[in-house]
This record gives sequence, structure tokens and C-alpha cells, in this order.
Amino acid sequence: MAAWNSYLDAHKAPFLDDLKALLRIPSISAIPEHAEDVAAAAEFTAARARAAGLENVVIMPTGGHPVVYADWLHAPGKPTVLIYGHFDVQPVDPLALWETPPFEPTIRDGRMYARGVSDMKAGVLTGIAAVEAMLKTSGALPLNVKYFLEGQEEIGSPQIPAFLAANKARFACDLVISADSGQFDETTPALLLGARGSCGFQIDVVGANSDLHSGLYGGAVTNPLHALVQALASCRGADGRVLVPGFYDEVLPLSAEDRAMIAHVPFDEAEYRAELGVDALWGEVGYTPIERAWARPTLEINGMWGGFQGAGGKTVLPNEAHAKITCRLVPDQDPTVIVDRVIAHIGRNLPPGVRATFDRRGGGAFPYLIPADHPANQVAAEILREIYGKEPVHVRTGGTVPVMTMFKTILGADTLSFAFGLNDERYHAPNEFMRMANIERGPAAYCMLIERLAAKGVR
Amino acid sequence: MAAWNSYLDAHKAPFLDDLKALLRIPSISAIPEHAEDVAAAAEFTAARARAAGLENVVIMPTGGHPVVYADWLHAPGKPTVLIYGHFDVQPVDPLALWETPPFEPTIRDGRMYARGVSDMKAGVLTGIAAVEAMLKTSGALPLNVKYFLEGQEEIGSPQIPAFLAANKARFACDLVISADSGQFDETTPALLLGARGSCGFQIDVVGANSDLHSGLYGGAVTNPLHALVQALASCRGADGRVLVPGFYDEVLPLSAEDRAMIAHVPFDEAEYRAELGVDALWGEVGYTPIERAWARPTLEINGMWGGFQGAGGKTVLPNEAHAKITCRLVPDQDPTVIVDRVIAHIGRNLPPGVRATFDRRGGGAFPYLIPADHPANQVAAEILREIYGKEPVHVRTGGTVPVMTMFKTILGADTLSFAFGLNDERYHAPNEFMRMANIERGPAAYCMLIERLAAKGVR
Repeated sequence: MAAWNSYLDAHKAPFLDDLKALLRIPSISAIPEHAEDVAAAAEFTAARARAAGLENVVIMPTGGHPVVYADWLHAPGKPTVLIYGHFDVQPVDPLALWETPPFEPTIRDGRMYARGVSDMKAGVLTGIAAVEAMLKTSGALPLNVKYFLEGQEEIGSPQIPAFLAANKARFACDLVISADSGQFDETTPALLLGARGSCGFQIDVVGANSDLHSGLYGGAVTNPLHALVQALASCRGADGRVLVPGFYDEVLPLSAEDRAMIAHVPFDEAEYRAELGVDALWGEVGYTPIERAWARPTLEINGMWGGFQGAGGKTVLPNEAHAKITCRLVPDQDPTVIVDRVIAHIGRNLPPGVRATFDRRGGGAFPYLIPADHPANQVAAEILREIYGKEPVHVRTGGTVPVMTMFKTILGADTLSFAFGLNDERYHAPNEFMRMANIERGPAAYCMLIERLAAKGVR
Repeated sequence: MAAWNSYLDAHKAPFLDDLKALLRIPSISAIPEHAEDVAAAAEFTAARARAAGLENVVIMPTGGHPVVYADWLHAPGKPTVLIYGHFDVQPVDPLALWETPPFEPTIRDGRMYARGVSDMKAGVLTGIAAVEAMLKTSGALPLNVKYFLEGQEEIGSPQIPAFLAANKARFACDLVISADSGQFDETTPALLLGARGSCGFQIDVVGANSDLHSGLYGGAVTNPLHALVQALASCRGADGRVLVPGFYDEVLPLSAEDRAMIAHVPFDEAEYRAELGVDALWGEVGYTPIERAWARPTLEINGMWGGFQGAGGKTVLPNEAHAKITCRLVPDQDPTVIVDRVIAHIGRNLPPGVRATFDRRGGGAFPYLIPADHPANQVAAEILREIYGKEPVHVRTGGTVPVMTMFKTILGADTLSFAFGLNDERYHAPNEFMRMANIERGPAAYCMLIERLAAKGVR
């Protein structure tokens, strides 16, 4: 048994106390009144990193909630890994639904209950505890480590891209390890390979200078709602494919291996349908539901409105119509390019007699994909196999994980997702919890990861 | 000069006093607090009819605002005309925009200002004054006359169809004469030939049992907004034609004569566009804007909504989408048949994974059309030609005039529209007025009409 392993065994209690202390800080990034709590969580995390033997620990201002940096860089010639996490948490409303107070960590039935335990304060401390165990027992690490611990993930990390770009040299690394992920189910480990990107805009269609009587004018002038319906319908075919010219031009086709990996993921379509309450799933022809959600791009109307929405009828020909659209993107689609193509297509498909304006919100996010056979994934898979006695499933998310793209774009580094939470642990909901077994398996797994990445390489 | 003409000349002042007295009654049918005022207007009108020499004057309950009936039926073997009008008025909000109080009739610059003067208390008294002049001077009328004066036109006459059906024999007639119409412009008379019918419904589309994250589910499940967009887009082609199978099956095509009459109507497209603030008019290919608005059916989205409508973005895949639709109909379309066809078509064009329900509001209204060469129109045209020194233009309205259809359906009688108001006289808006010249020309014109209809026939 490795020396770090004995150290971790001997320090279970103080490590759990550290976690409880961090969980008691209500570091809700979305609520301005909690800004000092987010700062306190940064202070606690920084102090914890210093106690672990990490160096150059600093709380860096971002213009918003701060970032904690720490490092240990005494393994010349060895790779550098950047451990990513966040110490901010979601709001707790509705408070009445919590069985025990959200910021009073409580252990019952083999689970710790507290806001932020699974998402992801246990993960933040896991990476620090692992390094402490190695430094305290051998005085050194087999590779170089840096930390990027932020306090604004739950509000979309608004200041982080600019902050990272401005501090590129400091965070330079060969691989990012993110603990902001999880396992597949109670007995199955997972490796997250990809996330979709996104881009979006609002379209506002205006016709006449006021609402018109649909009897007097209907048929003679363009109805902005019809114009918008026609233009939006032209974006997707009856076979679920997006009809915007060029939309799929840069899409990397799913390989036979990709499809086999996705098919390997346990998925019960009947159960999925029953959970959603729908009698059929539907989407792009030729792909399974998971392929469509994880690995194929889509164009979705998030909201649409215009004209009379009250009770009963009103014979109005409205003079405005509006819609909010987002596209989910897969490699190698570029959010700016795609939003341009969609907007151009909609513009070409509006009938005469209306004007459209487009509001592009933000710049969008690039999709992310790390190969399943990336050296870091191979190392992680080997460790997970040993811990769980089971092959990890290779998953993607249909959502967007901007940090993975950001690290790739700004630092040129891939992200290995390595974590032990579960989707059912109610992060973002009342009674968030994490299984004690998963809290406890983290630090040892991280020690194994550091050792083997040092031995086998990170890229 | 006819005896009635001298009588009208001699009684200008008292007739104007009568009109002012009726205008002082705030008979707003839409506001429950004014129900007694509507009743007072009925009393005034009934008393005025009695004073004119009309018989069997009675205020008839309808379940809502009352109807005033009166008759003179001493011309055996001669046709019977039913004179239609309404003594209720629109609300006056916003009151602050009125230059003089809405229920204090004021004459300035050759116009009388008051709520309801043009729409249509002057018209109500015109038909009574004309008959009074003839009865007081010759003791008889050349045909039989009945009156149907109602108090709920401005709220859509909810009790009137059932009331008329229940009193069919009393109101039996050969022709209806409606004063609820007007001339084309200050110097041009008009004859109203037709009105479009209507039918409508609300569609509610439901997908999953709650809103979903558009990243996690987008592409895998049906988006109800997309489903609705696709189904509604399938209802109208890029050429503006309605694509619902059978939609045009019963439509009477526009004859060359119809089109020539419409083309004869003074219409400045550039001015129309400028007024609406649109750079182009658009609609069913092959028809002019007026043809489309007056004489072709249409399908319009009156309102549509679903998903996120706030500021910024929200990556939601909504679980509901809604729209309100109305169709405007032309002869010989049947509102029930058309709404059935549209709903069936939409049902066939929804993708899998959503459920739709349809709420049919009311039964709809049939379209109406009276031939331009109907004997009554020929008589009216001759009179208008004499009064204005100009041919009347034959117009239709794209809106719905349910009473014309109702009289046709229940009484089997066509409606001649014969009136002198103008569209610019701000009915339904602050500072409603009517030109004194038009108020004064009404009674004599009605006397001419009664004489010539008696001589030349009404059907």
C-alpha cells in the first residue's frame, strides 16, 4: 500500500471536518448579498491549499467572484496538470423543502446532505487532499500541479474567459483535470468525452406600424407571425434535419466507434419516454435519441410570442412577432459561423412586407470533444476499472461546458473529467447530497491518477 | 318638390334637437353600469318612433340590451322593408383626449361632435324622420315598414340571433335596409355588397410533462414550438395561398365583373403602404390587395406563444406552445366546415411526440354577399347618383357584419346598406363626429328610397 494511502486513511476525519467547514459557508454566487461568502469560500480554499503544502497560493481578482490559484512545480521535465473546480454553489430556494438546513452538513443513511456537497465542494477538496497526502508522505509529486478554483461557475463564469486569457502564462499546462463531472450510476464509472457548443439569437419581426384588424387587413398585408412561422419552419425539415444551408458543413461525422460507444451506454427508451411523459421521441432521422442529444447539432426555438395571448379571441393581425433560438453545436462547428448562416437563411425566408432584426446574445460556446483513446482517458479508464471492477462508459453531454472549450482554446489543453458524483444527487435542487462512499473514494483515485499520468504521459 | 321634402326642411331644427337629446344618453353597451342608459336610449327611440306616427312600437326584452320594434303596415300588396340600426355606442376611453365631452353634442366647423353620432344615432333617427315626413304629409307610406333597432351591436349582439329566430314572424320582410354603413369619401357614395365570414380556434400543443433543458434534450425530443411552427407553416404556401385541403372548394370565384368593380374603387397602394408603414404588401398570388382583403378567404395567426419570453436567453425546450387562429371566409364557405378542415390539416402535420387540443370559440359567422345588380342596389345607386352627381363605388368589407348574414339566414332577406357616415369620423375613438351635411342629407335620401323601392320592387 502506498504511503499516501495510509495518510488518507489516517486523515479521514479531519478531511471530512474540512469539507463540513467549507459546506457551512453559503457561497451562493448568484445572490449579491452572498458575495462575501463566496470570498470566504475562496479564503478557506486558499488556506486549505497552503496547509496541504501547495505553493504560490493566491486569491486573484477577476472583476467578479475571485479565482484561487495554487501550484507545486518541482518536477522539471514532467508534465503540468491544472486541476479545475468551483467553490460557489446554487441558491437554496425553496428552503422549506430542505429536510435539514442547506448549510448545516448532515450525515444520514450513508449520505452527506448539504448545498454544494456534490456540486462540487467535495470535488474541490478531493484534489487538494490527494496532493497533501503525497507531499506529506514523500515530500514531492511525480508531476507539476496547478489549481484553477473559481467562484462563479453557477452564474456562467462571466469574467472567467477574459481572466484566463489575461493570465494565460500562469495557467499554462499540459492537461486540465476537472472534478466537475461524475460517475454514470451507483456501480458504473463514466468518462465524459464531449459537450455540445451553443449559439443563439433573438429575432424580432415587425410589420405595420400598429396592430391591425384581421378582418379588414387579413390577406392584404403580411402577418409578422406568419412570416416568422414560415421562416422558422424553413429551418427544419419534416425529417428533423436542420435545413439551413451549410449547417452541417463542419460537423465531424459520427464514426462507427463513436456510435458503438454510445450504443454501449445503458439507455432504456421506454423508461426515458415515460419519465418525460411523451408517447414518442422524435428528431433527426438516422440517429438514435442519445446520438441526437449528445453528438448531433440541433436548432431549437426556446421561446416565441406575438399578438393576442389572453382568454377568448381577438381578431388582430399583430404587427410584431418574436422568437428566441439557440443551436447546439458539435465539433467542428463554430458558433459565430453557424449563427451567421442561420440568420442569413431566416432573412432569405421571410416574405415581403416585414422587417427583421437579430440580437446575438454573447458569442456562443464552441463544442468540445476529447478522444476516448486520449492518453489521459486511457489512464483514467484503467483506474476506474480497478476501483469499480467495471468498464467506464464513455458519455457526452448535450449541454454546454464552456470551461472545457475555454481551456482548449486559450491554453491549448484538453480536459480530463474525473469525478465521483452522481446525477441523482440533487445538485441545483433541495436536499442536495453526496454518497459518503463517493466522497471517500475521491482522494485515493486522484493520487492514483497523478502517479499514472506522470508515468504514462498526459498528451 | 315632394311634400315630405318641405316637411323635412321645416323640421330641421327639431330633428337636430332630437339627435342631440339621444346623443346625451351615454348608452355604452359594453359597460354594465350603463345598462340603464342603453334602456333609456331604447325608450327615447321608441317614443320618437311613436311621435313619428309609427305603430305597434314595443321595447322587446332579449335577455340582454333590448330591441325596439315599430311598424307601419298599411300598404297591402306592397313589399315590406325592415330598417336596421343600433342605439348603443362604444366606450369613450381615453376621456382626456376628447376636446368636448363625449355626451355633450357640440357643433363646430360644420361637424357635430359626440360619441355615437356617426356610429350610428344619426342613422337611427334618419329612418324615423323620413317616415314621419311621409306620414305627416300624405298620411301613408307607399310600402310597409318595420324597424329593428338594437342596443348591443357594439358588444357583438350576443342575444340577437336567438332573439331574431324566436321572433321570425314579427320581423318577416322582403328587404333589410341598414343604416350601419357609410359613403366612400367626402364626395363619393358607396354601396356595400359584401362582408367576409369568420371562424376560429385555439390550438394548444403539449410535449413533455415539464420544460426541459434544451442542451440536454434538444434534438432528442419534439419541441412543441417547432411542432406548432411546422404545422402552421403547412397551412400557407410561399405564394400566400392557404394549403389546407378543401379550403377553397366552395369559394365562388371572382367574376370579371366583380374584379372590374373592385378595380374601379379608388385605391392608392403607395398611400396605403405609407399609412401602414410597410414597404410591400403581400398575400395570395394573383389577386390585388383589395381583392385579397375583401373577396378572398385568408387564414391568420392572431396570437402565438410558448417558452421563454423574458429578457436575455434561457436554454429551455418548452413543453407547451399555443396559437390562436381565425379564418376570414367568402361565399360560399361554411365556418364549421372550414374550421374542421383546418384542424384536421394541422393534426396531420404535427410531428410525433406532442399532443394537440383545439378549442373552437363560438360557431363562426357566414360570409355575406348581395349582387351589385340586386333591384334594391339599383334603386339605391340611382338615388346616390342624383344626390352626389357621381356613380357610387361598390365596396365590400374584409371584416364580418353578422347581422347581414343573420337576416339572410333567419329571415331570408337581403340587406341594402344605405348610409352617409364616413370612415374617418372616428367612431370607436375620441372626438367622434359626423359632418352636418351628411346628417342633413339622410332623411330626404330615405324618403326617396322608400318611394322608389315601392315603385320598382325590392327583390
